This record gives sequence, structure tokens and C-alpha cells, in this order.
Amino acid sequence: MNERMKTRQKLIKVARGKKRAELVLKNCRYVNVFTGMIDKGDIAISSGIIIGVDDYLGDVEVDCKNRIVAPGLIDGHVHIESSLMTPPGFASAVIPKGTTTVIADPHEIGNVCGLDGIKYMLEASKICPLDVYVMLPSCVPSTDFENAGAVLLASDLRTLIDEEHVIGLGEMMNYPGVFFGNEDVHDKLMDFKDKPIDGHAPGVTGKDLNSYILSGVVTDHECVNHKELEEKVAKGMYIHLREGSATKNVAELCRGITANNSRRLMFCTDDKHPTDIVKEGHIDYNIRLAIRNGINPITAIQMATLNTAECYGLKHKGAIAPGYEADLIVLSDLESFAVKDVYKKGVLVSKDGKALFEQNKYEDDLVLDTIHLIKNQEINLSLELKSEYCKVIGLLNESIITKRVIRKVDVIRGCFSTNPKVDILKLAVIERHKATGNIGLGLVEGYGLKGGAIGLTIAHDSHNIIVIGDKDEDMQLCVEELQRLTGGICIVFGGKVVGSLQLEVGGLMTDAPLNEVTSNLINLESIARGMGVPKGIDPFMTLAFLALPVIPELKVTDIGLFDTRAFKFVEVEE
Amino acid sequence: MNERMKTRQKLIKVARGKKRAELVLKNCRYVNVFTGMIDKGDIAISSGIIIGVDDYLGDVEVDCKNRIVAPGLIDGHVHIESSLMTPPGFASAVIPKGTTTVIADPHEIGNVCGLDGIKYMLEASKICPLDVYVMLPSCVPSTDFENAGAVLLASDLRTLIDEEHVIGLGEMMNYPGVFFGNEDVHDKLMDFKDKPIDGHAPGVTGKDLNSYILSGVVTDHECVNHKELEEKVAKGMYIHLREGSATKNVAELCRGITANNSRRLMFCTDDKHPTDIVKEGHIDYNIRLAIRNGINPITAIQMATLNTAECYGLKHKGAIAPGYEADLIVLSDLESFAVKDVYKKGVLVSKDGKALFEQNKYEDDLVLDTIHLIKNQEINLSLELKSEYCKVIGLLNESIITKRVIRKVDVIRGCFSTNPKVDILKLAVIERHKATGNIGLGLVEGYGLKGGAIGLTIAHDSHNIIVIGDKDEDMQLCVEELQRLTGGICIVFGGKVVGSLQLEVGGLMTDAPLNEVTSNLINLESIARGMGVPKGIDPFMTLAFLALPVIPELKVTDIGLFDTRAFKFVEVEE
Repeated sequence: MNERMKTRQKLIKVARGKKRAELVLKNCRYVNVFTGMIDKGDIAISSGIIIGVDDYLGDVEVDCKNRIVAPGLIDGHVHIESSLMTPPGFASAVIPKGTTTVIADPHEIGNVCGLDGIKYMLEASKICPLDVYVMLPSCVPSTDFENAGAVLLASDLRTLIDEEHVIGLGEMMNYPGVFFGNEDVHDKLMDFKDKPIDGHAPGVTGKDLNSYILSGVVTDHECVNHKELEEKVAKGMYIHLREGSATKNVAELCRGITANNSRRLMFCTDDKHPTDIVKEGHIDYNIRLAIRNGINPITAIQMATLNTAECYGLKHKGAIAPGYEADLIVLSDLESFAVKDVYKKGVLVSKDGKALFEQNKYEDDLVLDTIHLIKNQEINLSLELKSEYCKVIGLLNESIITKRVIRKVDVIRGCFSTNPKVDILKLAVIERHKATGNIGLGLVEGYGLKGGAIGLTIAHDSHNIIVIGDKDEDMQLCVEELQRLTGGICIVFGGKVVGSLQLEVGGLMTDAPLNEVTSNLINLESIARGMGVPKGIDPFMTLAFLALPVIPELKVTDIGLFDTRAFKFVEVEE
Repeated sequence: MNERMKTRQKLIKVARGKKRAELVLKNCRYVNVFTGMIDKGDIAISSGIIIGVDDYLGDVEVDCKNRIVAPGLIDGHVHIESSLMTPPGFASAVIPKGTTTVIADPHEIGNVCGLDGIKYMLEASKICPLDVYVMLPSCVPSTDFENAGAVLLASDLRTLIDEEHVIGLGEMMNYPGVFFGNEDVHDKLMDFKDKPIDGHAPGVTGKDLNSYILSGVVTDHECVNHKELEEKVAKGMYIHLREGSATKNVAELCRGITANNSRRLMFCTDDKHPTDIVKEGHIDYNIRLAIRNGINPITAIQMATLNTAECYGLKHKGAIAPGYEADLIVLSDLESFAVKDVYKKGVLVSKDGKALFEQNKYEDDLVLDTIHLIKNQEINLSLELKSEYCKVIGLLNESIITKRVIRKVDVIRGCFSTNPKVDILKLAVIERHKATGNIGLGLVEGYGLKGGAIGLTIAHDSHNIIVIGDKDEDMQLCVEELQRLTGGICIVFGGKVVGSLQLEVGGLMTDAPLNEVTSNLINLESIARGMGVPKGIDPFMTLAFLALPVIPELKVTDIGLFDTRAFKFVEVEE
């Protein structure tokens, strides 16, 4: 008899009560996602699997003292890279919050390292007690108006389609490509037609939405009002209710939840910073928000567990029943939904908000040393202007949308010159993947910085170097320091580096411990505030989105200043 | 650009309203299974697919005059063989009732012809406008106490696992084999662990049920009371509410349906005779019964469409939304649920209860000529008795369970002899697959027949010849006629064949037209009634189950008289 058969025979004996379970959680009240009830019993676990809930004996028995036990939570759509942590660090942040499984789209590292980046995420996820399922990034690069580190065609994705933990196609952001029949887009959609395909269709409605769904897209996480949610669910989509660092949609979308449509609803974070995860929580926070907005706690839990598992075909996740993986969370109580203990495959991995596992490190040279500039080349950031009247990127509070404004600026010896009395700064996006030497320049109003520069190697979605400042030398120093760090965040003040966070993996993530990263980030933010960045503007996130040419109105890529209304590159001068 | 891409591009244009659809059902009110609402719109269809519901124009437009349109119905578990019709004939019976897809377990033909029988069902299903998905029979033969035509081991099933339209493992009736760790049983369960596995667990509960579910079984259609349904759903199973010819569970099970658990519920017929299908209906009848028992019509429709599609992983079935197959039914109204028109992949296949397609025939020699007896051997049916006191199979009204009763019978020259004043008949089960010469004999009380014999080549689950009568010569003639017919049903009266139905395919099914089969069956039943078979006893079905040794209490197989209480073969004499 082989090992698998032996294990099976053993588990059957345990289920029938003929043999003790490895672990029994005694005296549980548990959330039955199939019936919507709170049931009672002992949860028996062996080999990481729930054997059954009944009256069971265990080698180890834990008295749950009548506390509520729920299935481990699932984040239905997340870019782990936005946590600035590699998968093990991300796990150490989200597991104590009750998230035991995530559906990840590694399109940030995909833009930097291509297939190698995706493989790294798959491997690095295996060394931590978090189940990471991967949707292969469908849109790398996200547009033709910027240079990323990689281009992923349908033929590239095909090489990973049967990889373990790869379960579908990531968010199809190129919805115009879908509507207009772009062949590579449709090749990708056809390759994944029997697997889940994530959507990204902000504001797409009516017949366009029909064509998008007809093409095979199953989910959407871009609903910002409940009418959108209602239409998309009615047309057969699964909808993620998103609550991340920048995009906060749960409260509004709760208005669209009905007893009948909730089975097609799920939760996600999309992009959430480590400090926000630590402070607010992760999917548990979405649940608390939903409860606060009038949703039945059990409905909210179904949305965070069974529904997501069904949508993504995870047959043995999202419920407490025989044969399901023993991913369990013990709650203070149902309404306040504070996660106390977390079990992953039957192992206690977090207690009272503290991870009980090591944050391991997965070594892979292919995702290190990703900053490639022309050797010894001095970076020339001077912005030649033929006119004093310029198009300027006007920042808006708490938004990644910008306004195009026209301003009169100082021009000295034919070049832009900072005026200390006017809040207009120079912005540079420097191609950093293939040492092309490309530099795109623009002007920004509303960032408030004085006496230095701030730079990052995170600049959605191509992740070139983006740097803003009021002195070219400080900006240049910032770029040099980012190069020395092999990626990260850097602040220069008065000619000196005054703060930095190394993000050595793809220039996007770090293996540093979670608490180090969060305390450093808090410190960096306070330095930036001290340098004048006003409340309402996230010093790093706002910057990171100034290079994304799919979001209105004015953006800068490594190729130049891009006007999304005209949908073309434009001169800085008006 | 290849053909697939061209079609895709065309469909997208249709969806966006840039090109006419092939067919538009105008002015529909349609059942939205995602929201539980009745919505309005024009349903656009091209290439057999629903393009969208909106304001659309079509090359052909049909005015639905505000009638209700619902997705085509799905039978979640059926043995097509019980209709006595081959798949094309079955289709012509059920499509006019609104069933457009079935999940079939061909275990009857599997018992006769093994893998060849299953392949025949797959192929014969392709020539009719009904989608037949196959769950491979897990229990052939159903017990070790009888000889069937085939034995299907895990290694046999493996050869068909990737066949088109094969989607899972059929009902695991051998639940003791599951509990006690039978290796072949568990090999089968492991082979299908990533696919749906149907259960069959009458009365199994508590920890035994936990072990059964833990082993990978996902569904059950054997619930006969609502408490069973509630427990099984709570433990994660999908449950079929069954309404067939012999087993009628819908009314009782409706008591267990809640707003929260209904998403895990489905409908099935399991075994339904052609006359009952024509008279009552098919899955539409289950829906009407559910509505009559207080279930919201839309909930009932979800149970007959989306829920079943989800359970069996049929991604593009069970809803009216972009990308779904255009299997649609037009109803008189929601409450009375009379099916008027039926569309299969966008083609009108039935109108006002009349099929609009030919009943085709699929030729396959491997499922013909399946009656194999020893050549020229006279069939000796004399039952030698050493005592006048015998164990007799006591029939019960409207049940396939029998009682073991002890009776004093006439013995002449050492053999059983019929007494015209006493209703005790001889029953013979004759092995007919491999010409072993096996004959099992027993006695039956309560069948009422006088002056002849009735025989069938349907005898669950091994389908040997079963024949009952009061004269050996009539019984012998019956067997000879069944042999001549290459299978079927035969009635002999006063030394003459007075009625028969040929079932040339495996001795179980016929390619004859539906109306011929049903009118003949009605005729045969009336002959049997005329010969004394009382109301409450189905002359053919009751007989067909007298050879099934898993159902209490006394049965006859080709090996002999079997006592299910003692779980062994016994002598007829007490």
C-alpha cells in the first residue's frame, strides 16, 4: 500500500472516531458558510485537513471556550508588491490579520523581471505559511507609451499556464484592446478560457460590458458605485469589494448587496501598504467595514471565504467541513471581528496578532540588481523651455488623477528654474531596465517639497525611476543613491541622503523584517512632511502613480510628457 | 487570422451593437439567476452563444411578447437507460420538457458492456440536441453477489477520464468500501479528486458521513427526509432533490430548503420511465412540485440551472448572460411553469411540447447482441425442495424493498409446484452475459400473475434475465423470446407470446421512436394487469429490482437466493 493510500486510510479512521485526531479544537462555535448558521462542535484536524466537526478526541486538544471559529480569509485580488514586502514578509503582515490565502497578480515584478519575476513570486511564496495563487499578468507593459523591463505576450504566458499555483489570467486592463479585437489580447483570453480571468473595467457598462464579459472575463474589482456592482453581477461577473490604501470602495458597494446576489461577491485589497495593513488590518478590515455598513456578519464572512474559493476553483478552501484545508481563525466575537488565533493547515501560526513563524528569505539573483542605467553617464535633468507658459501636472488631494494646468514659470538660460516662492517642481522619469538613457521630464504643482528631492524605483506600472525635487543636484544624488541601493525609496535634503528604504527585489520589495520596514516608512513619511509635502498628498504613492499613462490627465513616462485627453505625448511648453 | 479569432471578433462586434445578431428574442422578461430578479430586454444570440441582453437587432427576430424566458434545465443525476430509450430517444422525450443538459451515469449499460457501453453512450449523445455529460460508473458490478457483463476497475476508468464530456466519477454506492478502506474504491476516488464525485449514501450520517465526504464525495441524491438534506448540506455536499418514477423526494426535501442553503441544492430524476416523462414531465416537474411546496419559483429555477452548473463545473451553462450557451426555455408563466418553446444553442428544438428534430440512430455493434446463453441448452427451471416450508420473497406495495416470509408450498416429485389457489410464483434469474449457465431460483408472493410468465433483460444492476411465472414452459418461452429479441420485455400467456418490447441496445434500451415505445409500454402494462398483477405492484419495475442484492430483505441473483439481513446466500427451504 503506498503512502497516499495509508494516509487516506488513517484519515478515514479518524473521521469515523476509530483513531484520535492530531488536533481537536474543542467547544467551538463555528461559522457554517453553507447554511449561514453558527454551529457547535469539536473541529478535528489531521494532516492539515479538517476531518469533521462532531464529538472528537485528539492527541492535542485546545479548548476554544465557545469562541467563534471561521474559515481563514481569502484576498481575492492583491498585488503583493504594493506591500513593499516579498511574499514571506507579506505573509508575516497579513496572517496575523486572518488572511490565509491570496489570489495574487504579480504584475509589478512582471513589468520589471518578466517571467523570472513571476517565477520568483511563485517560489518565494512556498516558504511561508500563506497560500499564494497566481493569476498571470495579462498586461505587461500596461501601455505602449512607456518602456518596462519586459513584454509578456500570450506565447510567454503559455509557458507558465500549467505551473503549480498558477490558476488563471490576471486583470485584463486593456479593455479597449478587448473591444477592438487586439489579437494578442484575445490570444491570452482564449488560452485561459477554461480558467478564471480577472477583469479591470472601471466604468465599463452596457454593450461594451457585454463584449468584455463575452470575451471570457469573470471578475471585476474596479466597481466604485453600487450601480456598477449591480449591473456587473446581473451579467454574471463575480465582484470584489475593494478596500486598499488608495481605493476604498467597501462602504459604497455594500449598498448593492442583496440576499440573492451576495454569493457572487468577494473582498480584495488590490494594493495596500504595510503600514496600513499593520494599522487597519487586511481582509478582516473589509469585513468589519461591511458589518459596520449593515451587512450580516455571516454574509460578509461568506464573501471572504467560500465565494472567493468558488470563483477561483479552490475546492478545498473557504469552509469548515470534512476534507477542507484546516485554515481557521478564532475570533473575539462575530460583530467586532477581531482575529485572535490563526491556524494554517492545522498549525497555529499567529496568536493575538503576533506571527509565530520566521520570516524566511528566498534567494534568486534574477530579481536582484535590476537598476540598469548607462555606466558613468551623468544624468542631465535640465528642462529646456522655449516659452515661459507650460503645461503643469496639478496634483489633487487623495487621488491618483491629476489636472492639466497652464502656468508661467521661470526660464533661465533657456531652461526651467525653480522659484522658491512658487510650488512647481521638476519631475523626471528615468528608464532603468535596459539602460536606454531615456529621460522624461515634466512639472508638478502641489507636491510642496522644499530643499531637496524624493525618488523611487516604484512607478506604476513600468517601474522606472521617478524623482521629484527643486534642485537638479539633489535629484541626481537621489538617483545615484537608488542605484546604489539597487532600488528603493530615497530622500535627499540639502545635498545629503536623509532617509532611504532599500527595495532590493526588483526595486519593488524587500526581504527586511516587517517591523523594520514599517518603522522606516513612518520615519520617511515624517521627513517628507517636514520638507513640505502637504497632508492629502501621499509623498510616495502619489509619486508612484505620476508615471501611469492610463490615468488622467497629465503624466510623465520615460518617453516624455503624456496628455491622456489627447492620448499622445506633448511638449511641456504650451 | 484563424477562424476562432474571426468568430471572436465577429461576436464582439455583435455584443457592442456594431453588427446584427443571428437571432434576437425581443421583448423578453427573463430569469436572472445571479440576482434572483426578473429582468427585461432583448436576448441576442450568435454562434449558439448568448451575446448579451439589451436593446439588440437581429437577422431573425422573435417577439416573445413579454413571456418569461429561463435558462435550459439541467438534470443533475440521471441513468438515461431507465427511460428505455437510447440517448437520441431520451432527448426527444426530455427536450420538449425544457431539459437541455443532463449529468448522466451510464452504469446500467456499463454493467452489460463495460467501457464499450460508456463509449456508446458518449457517442450516441453527440447526435442529438441534448448535452450529455458523463460521470464514469464507480461501482460495476454493484456487488460481489452477482455476475454482471463487466468489471470496471480504477485502471479501466482511467482510460476514459480525459474523454470529452466525461466530467467526474459516478455515484459511489459502495459506501462500506469507502468506510473500510477498499483500495480499488479509494484508487477511483483519488483519480477523480479534482473532479466532481457523485455520492449515494442513503441514511449515512454523523461520523460515517464525515469519512465519506472526506474521501472526496461531493453530492448525494439519496436524501429522503429534510434532516438528512440539512446535515449533508451543512457538511459541504451538494444535494439533488430527486423525483423519479419510483423515488419521489421533492415534497419532503423542500422542508429543508432555506434562503442560505439553496445555492447547494439541485434537482434530478435518477430513474424515470418514458411514460412518466411524457405524462408528468422531467425537471420541469420537479420545479412545479417545489413551487407547489412553497419554494420561490426563482429559487427553484436556480436549483435547476446555475447551482447544478456550478456543482459540475459547467462554466457556460445555467444562466442568461453574455458568454453563456443559448439554451433557453420560454414559459407560459412563472408559477405554472409550463414549457412552451425550447432553444438549444440558439436553435428552436421544441415548440408547444413537440420536438422539432429527428430522433437519429447511432450504430454500434458492440452494444448489440448482448444476450449470451449456452447454445441449445434447455433451461431447467425446476426448483428442487427438501421441505414444504420455504423462504418466500414478500412484495410490498410501491416499494423495491421486500419482506422475507415463510410459507408452506406444494412439493410434487421433490420439486416446487404452483398451486392456482395460492399467489406464490417461481422467479428465475439467468446469467446472460457470459453464458455461464448460472440460474438462481426463488419464490415470490404478491405478484398476482396467473396463466403465464413475464420476463425482462433489465435486472438491476447486473441486468441478467429475470423471469417470473406459474408455468415452467411459459417461463422458458419467455426466455427464448427475450433471446430472439436480443433483449427487452416479454409477456407469455397460455403458451403464447402476447406482448413484447424489444430493447436491442444492451438489452436495456431501444432506438425505436418515443411514441412507439410509450404506447407499447402502456399496452404491456395493461396485459400484465389483465393477467392479475395488482395495483401497487409495477409489473416490470418491481421485477427489475428483485435481483438487486443491496436492497432488503430477500433477493435472487444468478447465483441464488440472497438474504440481505444475514448478508449471504441461503437455501429456499427453511
